[in-house]
Amino acid sequence: MSNGATTENLVIPQDYRFGPGEENALELDCGKKLYDVNIRYETYGKLAPARDNAVLIAHALTGDAHVSGKHSADDRKPGWWDNMVGPGKYIDTDKYFVICSNVIGGCSGSTGPRSVNPATGKLYNLDFPVITIADMVRAQKRLIDHLQITRLLAVVGGSMGGMQALEWSKSYPEMAQGIVAIATTYQLAPQSIAFNWVGSQAIRSDSDFSNGNYAVNPERGLATARMLAHITYLSDESMEQKFGRNLQDADRYSFAFKRDFAVESYLEHQGQRFVERFDANSYLYITRATDYFDLADGGTLAEALKVAKSDFLVVSFSSDWLFTTNQSEALVKALLANNLNCSFCEIESSYGHDAFLLEVDRLGALIRDFLANQRKKFQ
Amino acid sequence: MSNGATTENLVIPQDYRFGPGEENALELDCGKKLYDVNIRYETYGKLAPARDNAVLIAHALTGDAHVSGKHSADDRKPGWWDNMVGPGKYIDTDKYFVICSNVIGGCSGSTGPRSVNPATGKLYNLDFPVITIADMVRAQKRLIDHLQITRLLAVVGGSMGGMQALEWSKSYPEMAQGIVAIATTYQLAPQSIAFNWVGSQAIRSDSDFSNGNYAVNPERGLATARMLAHITYLSDESMEQKFGRNLQDADRYSFAFKRDFAVESYLEHQGQRFVERFDANSYLYITRATDYFDLADGGTLAEALKVAKSDFLVVSFSSDWLFTTNQSEALVKALLANNLNCSFCEIESSYGHDAFLLEVDRLGALIRDFLANQRKKFQ
Repeated sequence: MSNGATTENLVIPQDYRFGPGEENALELDCGKKLYDVNIRYETYGKLAPARDNAVLIAHALTGDAHVSGKHSADDRKPGWWDNMVGPGKYIDTDKYFVICSNVIGGCSGSTGPRSVNPATGKLYNLDFPVITIADMVRAQKRLIDHLQITRLLAVVGGSMGGMQALEWSKSYPEMAQGIVAIATTYQLAPQSIAFNWVGSQAIRSDSDFSNGNYAVNPERGLATARMLAHITYLSDESMEQKFGRNLQDADRYSFAFKRDFAVESYLEHQGQRFVERFDANSYLYITRATDYFDLADGGTLAEALKVAKSDFLVVSFSSDWLFTTNQSEALVKALLANNLNCSFCEIESSYGHDAFLLEVDRLGALIRDFLANQRKKFQ
Repeated sequence: MSNGATTENLVIPQDYRFGPGEENALELDCGKKLYDVNIRYETYGKLAPARDNAVLIAHALTGDAHVSGKHSADDRKPGWWDNMVGPGKYIDTDKYFVICSNVIGGCSGSTGPRSVNPATGKLYNLDFPVITIADMVRAQKRLIDHLQITRLLAVVGGSMGGMQALEWSKSYPEMAQGIVAIATTYQLAPQSIAFNWVGSQAIRSDSDFSNGNYAVNPERGLATARMLAHITYLSDESMEQKFGRNLQDADRYSFAFKRDFAVESYLEHQGQRFVERFDANSYLYITRATDYFDLADGGTLAEALKVAKSDFLVVSFSSDWLFTTNQSEALVKALLANNLNCSFCEIESSYGHDAFLLEVDRLGALIRDFLANQRKKFQ
């Protein structure tokens, strides 16, 4: 078992594989089973002898297990939440044993649609079962069991990571003492489902897609989906501040369907960077998991949360129009209706949904204090 | 000349062709010229002997000249603004001589990218010059001259039609007494430019597009662009009311990337209907014209509007997040700074941008009264 798999400040990705054999297979919400599942994960800090300091971080839609630090000294960039997680940082790896795993369905080490289907010896592609947020959490639970942790101090996540954190409180209420749900929602609004649908159609329209059996990532369609999603991550206000109607290269329109506007070049850049690191099939599976996510199970949220026992920190951002403060407030209301301990904060920010990655100091202070309180009362 | 080209309550589309010959060519903002330009238009009602009752209606992005009535008794549907325009209606064709023409760049009768380039004998496709809102208005001016109307009682338009109406007040300040600018903006915000960019990339990614030289409309890409745009025409609130998370066919998710949600089926339906009536190249050209539209010419709006002399009615809708009340208010401010007569109304509505086609009664009453006042003071 790995306690803080870091050497000389470098972090080493690890793999936990389970489920060759019927009894170890992962049962999914769709009714199917996944066999021979790999979970790619990273850990930071040391698990305390009392095993009372484990914090699971759940990543967002296109994130991965690499939260903090570098894999090699040459890495250009550290992990995606490096400013939040590390020694002496808000989620202090001198104090906490931090775990993050790539979700199943992903394309960054865990089993997903581009993994080999053990039943056929070929890539799953669209034969991969359609998974849910609860399925992702079910796989994480296997990892936590493997790490011999019986109770997590907290599960922390932003955006789709927040959905997983919330799902932990429902699926495994005894196992997660604290839940930190940031810039997230208990269910996608129809507008968000609609944006995901358009993105998925852009991918499927790409002639390289070949119904998922592509040799080469269908980059044009995937970039289009990413550009669309990216608009929903920014706010009207932040786009106005960042780009306005600035032109990219000259004072004059090209009159030639070029990338005249700075915002167009920015989006294209985002799209291009994305297709280098993300797989189109994974994108379809993971966005579908968010569409399907409904903590209320089609009923009332308060009723669905009756099983929950965790303490909650819920944080929204004022200009986030993807997962709105209204949605966070509805969640908080349902938690309070169940007499659960719940702190809620709306952080004023113009960054839109992306604020959960950008407003590090204001968000970090809230998380740091919440974790400290959870540690004190850990049972 | 045609005064009310209607027979037995049927409306007959008309064509005005100009510009074979250098001296009649249409000069464009890009510096190029269009030769042999056709304008498809319709008229309703009769031009009064004093020629003081002509109302030009400018259509929105994907509209056409067919505002009201039917072309044949068998038509399933009347024109796109039939509930607003007609005998005894808010824009009363018993009183006013109403004109509407298809924009150049369009695909509903006026010269556009799928017209034959007289220089080559082949379709223009992407050789068609990139046009602007001012170019569209320049073509309309030719039509109005042809109809021997020296001064319009009013130019009325919603969305991109509103941009054309506003452009009239700047390009031909003597020729438009009243301007009705509905659910529109003086310039697109970067967020809107960004959405248009993503839509254009969806079209261009379609393997049928063939760089604009398609034999068959690239339907998949165009439908994707339309679905995306359609989301921006609705409000979060109206989508919640109309669809929520309702499932389409069953109580259970398909777990198969089907159209599970009602909102997905709705969007697909909208996309499919759209590709039957609209051309992909036209979509690229016309959305680009809206991107380029900047009534402020890159400077301050008040300065740019110094030339204007019209009276204005500006109407916005509270839930319109595509062209917001804030944008209308900035316009009104600039008009008032130039001591222009300007009425402004924000109509409370949950319909989003589409409200300009749906809130007929509240909007219609405002337009009716504005036109009546303009008629009284017509010079």
